[in-house]
Amino acid sequence: LSQYDEELLKLKSLPAVTLDGKEIKLMANLDISEEMSFIIHNCADGIGLVRTEQLFEEYEVFPDEDQQFEVYNKIAESIYPKVVIIRAFDIGGDKVLPVDLHEPNPMLGWRGIRLLLDSPNLFKTQIRAVLRASLHKNVWFMLPMINSLSEVVAANQLIDECKKELTEEGIKYDDEIPVGIMIEVPSAAVLTSDFADVVDFISIGTNDLIQYLLAVDRGNEIVSSQYQEFHPAVIRTIKHIIDEAGKKSVPIGMCGEMAADPFALPLLVGLGLESLSISAAGIPLHKKILRSLNYSELKRLADECLNLKNEDEINNKLHKFFNEKISDQIKNLY
Amino acid sequence: LSQYDEELLKLKSLPAVTLDGKEIKLMANLDISEEMSFIIHNCADGIGLVRTEQLFEEYEVFPDEDQQFEVYNKIAESIYPKVVIIRAFDIGGDKVLPVDLHEPNPMLGWRGIRLLLDSPNLFKTQIRAVLRASLHKNVWFMLPMINSLSEVVAANQLIDECKKELTEEGIKYDDEIPVGIMIEVPSAAVLTSDFADVVDFISIGTNDLIQYLLAVDRGNEIVSSQYQEFHPAVIRTIKHIIDEAGKKSVPIGMCGEMAADPFALPLLVGLGLESLSISAAGIPLHKKILRSLNYSELKRLADECLNLKNEDEINNKLHKFFNEKISDQIKNLY
Ligand SMILES: [Mg+2]
Ligand SMILES: [Mg+2]
Repeated sequence: LSQYDEELLKLKSLPAVTLDGKEIKLMANLDISEEMSFIIHNCADGIGLVRTEQLFEEYEVFPDEDQQFEVYNKIAESIYPKVVIIRAFDIGGDKVLPVDLHEPNPMLGWRGIRLLLDSPNLFKTQIRAVLRASLHKNVWFMLPMINSLSEVVAANQLIDECKKELTEEGIKYDDEIPVGIMIEVPSAAVLTSDFADVVDFISIGTNDLIQYLLAVDRGNEIVSSQYQEFHPAVIRTIKHIIDEAGKKSVPIGMCGEMAADPFALPLLVGLGLESLSISAAGIPLHKKILRSLNYSELKRLADECLNLKNEDEINNKLHKFFNEKISDQIKNLY
Repeated sequence: LSQYDEELLKLKSLPAVTLDGKEIKLMANLDISEEMSFIIHNCADGIGLVRTEQLFEEYEVFPDEDQQFEVYNKIAESIYPKVVIIRAFDIGGDKVLPVDLHEPNPMLGWRGIRLLLDSPNLFKTQIRAVLRASLHKNVWFMLPMINSLSEVVAANQLIDECKKELTEEGIKYDDEIPVGIMIEVPSAAVLTSDFADVVDFISIGTNDLIQYLLAVDRGNEIVSSQYQEFHPAVIRTIKHIIDEAGKKSVPIGMCGEMAADPFALPLLVGLGLESLSISAAGIPLHKKILRSLNYSELKRLADECLNLKNEDEINNKLHKFFNEKISDQIKNLY
């Protein structure tokens, strides 16, 4: 075995815990087409994000309830007894739409929960499939692009309808399936405390949150340099979300690309995040980094970053920290 | 004279002050093509927003420094000794662009200060024209779409360059011309306190702020019903901006459409706004409303709205307040 493989093998069976005992959940994002076995091989703590909209790319026509059930159920069974978080279709924006629509600003348009609530048949088909896959109580259901409490109320109403239907049909499901939201629209970040009262969990979606906070389309080359993970408004907003969810003891995670960035990891954990969902391939490196650090120094690092006023300063501080405290520890993994 | 005209005539010479003595500045937004005389007739407190990008619609080619100077100087002289706030070109987004550009999401693209800093010649031409018009010390200069402190630093650098050039050319200007920013991107709202340290004034641009906070393109019919002035995240963000600017004693105003909405007026004043810029035609009605109310009850109204959790509740409360306390007072003005 190479030194690299030996390292990985060792890490597999070890928890993601800092030197001073702070444990972090490392979950995997699942692309539908991916091999589950790879995730199960690398991922200790469940699946933090299933991007169900990818089903639209797999199937020629819109997948029906049974087709969806088969996919969700297979995932839930494979990862059991660990948890899988299934996200409702996040279509629209830059993602595939079931209809041909030309919006002037699709990122600010008909997408996520907006589209789902406007399409109750489509949404209910998915909800029924998710409920049927929840029988073993390891499925959580997550709503994308949430803006208002009324959207959660409306979604819960549809979930209740589906439960009633299934009960009448004699089909079993987890009656207490946790329902949570993505916080990825700035309004939801502002209202975190109110959402924490009515949802079972929260996941921060950094890709969209950063786009909207900074009003920058990261797919647009002319301005994409202004899409800044370490913009002070981003850091402070993430801190606000974590603190407000924490006050209400609502589980909070993160599933955007920022969660997968090794340079961001010390900051995110220092800010108080206890659960990250990233690509399965990145889990060993994240684990190795966390196991070489003290949570106390991460908290200090985060506090210092919260006081900085521009992105360059924060970026420099994080890279300096990485070079001084981490790069030596992980050189075997490159 | 009709009763309507008599009312208007009376209001012209009276201040916009509540029954219990709170005075509010009511300024006018100026569309370049508009009649200055109408504004001067209706507007007691200066011009709160000149949309200079409208010059692109007036001129066939890009207006040069002298052409711009003539326009700005005429406005400054007409409104003297009151203040005029000239906003730097806010091109891009849904507004005219000097180049043919196809962005997937123009609202999240190359616009406002981003475009200006990428086009220093264009920007400096405008800055020189504004400086030349500032001689009588009643011109303020405002930067649109600000996201980061570094953008303010870069803009100030160009302003300093222009000042130096003008001094060398023996041309006079206001060396202490106030430079302020629009807060209309959520990141800037988050960082209000930091911006308050480095700018001379702040104006809240509600149209864009609401769009980005809620991730809703208000020009898109499919989702425009979700563009909500009274969304709780909007109200709380406005409150945050006012409070943080207030702590640093930085003058703060508002110049979006929300400022012109009579239903929003009691709330905005109750939240602590002391300056509103609206269309000149709306000023008498706003004045009439303010003169019939007590600031103490507006503060109570705002506090109640800050505690509500959805847009419908806030909307209902404001309409109830309007019907009970205001509609009788203003029926002569309809
Ligand atoms: Mg997203
Ligand atoms: Mg604007």
